[in-house]
Amino acid sequence: MNTDKHQLLNRLKTIEGHVRGVQRMVEDDAYCVDIIKQTQAIQRALDKFNSLILAGHLNGCVTTAIRGEDPQERERVVSELLQVFETTSNL
Amino acid sequence: MNTDKHQLLNRLKTIEGHVRGVQRMVEDDAYCVDIIKQTQAIQRALDKFNSLILAGHLNGCVTTAIRGEDPQERERVVSELLQVFETTSNL
Amino acid sequence: MNTDKHQLLNRLKTIEGHVRGVQRMVEDDAYCVDIIKQTQAIQRALDKFNSLILAGHLNGCVTTAIRGEDPQERERVVSELLQVFETTSNL
Amino acid sequence: MNTDKHQLLNRLKTIEGHVRGVQRMVEDDAYCVDIIKQTQAIQRALDKFNSLILAGHLNGCVTTAIRGEDPQERERVVSELLQVFETTSNL
Repeated sequence: MNTDKHQLLNRLKTIEGHVRGVQRMVEDDAYCVDIIKQTQAIQRALDKFNSLILAGHLNGCVTTAIRGEDPQERERVVSELLQVFETTSNL
Repeated sequence: MNTDKHQLLNRLKTIEGHVRGVQRMVEDDAYCVDIIKQTQAIQRALDKFNSLILAGHLNGCVTTAIRGEDPQERERVVSELLQVFETTSNL
Repeated sequence: MNTDKHQLLNRLKTIEGHVRGVQRMVEDDAYCVDIIKQTQAIQRALDKFNSLILAGHLNGCVTTAIRGEDPQERERVVSELLQVFETTSNL
Repeated sequence: MNTDKHQLLNRLKTIEGHVRGVQRMVEDDAYCVDIIKQTQAIQRALDKFNSLILAGHLNGCVTTAIRGEDPQERERVVSELLQVFETTSNL
């Protein structure tokens, strides 16, 4: 975890508050489309969070594993990256 | 809002708890890829939530507007649906 | 199919040419990331095409079905729209 | 490009044929939702193609760059991977 932990936690707290905001919208019978717009904004905030985690991962764990001498470890990080990509693109 | 409000709120509370779980993972320096897997699971839970909201919207507001006599209202609900679809497919 | 057929076909011909362009890149051993950028552009072009089809569908078939007197037909178009949305968001 | 070129080209030819199939559907006034289902299938085929390209890229160019001695080159491949991921998740 190379990326700034404090910044990551702040992002998650903002996302948590955003989810609670959507709960209030549901309680207050807000307009469906306005609710969907807010949850889509939360999904984009999670994408941005993931991108920061991935940046730290590539510069940290992945670089260390690929520069290391253990071929199984290299294979493992590559296979994990592919899985992240495939889940993102929803294969 | 035609879909069961209680069920929707429960889903959002589960999602909120899931976001707090990711905060603990970040605090505990969990492995990056495990964190990303959890945020991707949250995104899928939000997709499912959106799908329920959209179902209620189509059977409620959209049906009422399209069966109604106001052409501007019909145009508005159609245009909103397209925007929801385009944001989902990330145009 | 209410949207302009000629325009839709032109978009598909452009997409087909784009796919052939990616074939030439693969044959010429183009850089992997440049290939991925092109296929991602094709995917966005398909999103835009789908959005046009969906606009025609909402203003045509969906409006007719929802204004019609057959409740099963109304249910069918709503259920199809949900399926399109869910496939788009990759549920 | 470490992945089998022949297999990649075959996939692209299949995708090209699939795009032509959608053209025929449009010409024949096929049902909108059936057209959208086919273009969504093409998008999934392009996701699978991208995943194969990315696998070759990670095992080839990325591994070489990260094991190499040029820090700028390492930075470049990491930054490219992040961009591919962000475009995939539509940031």
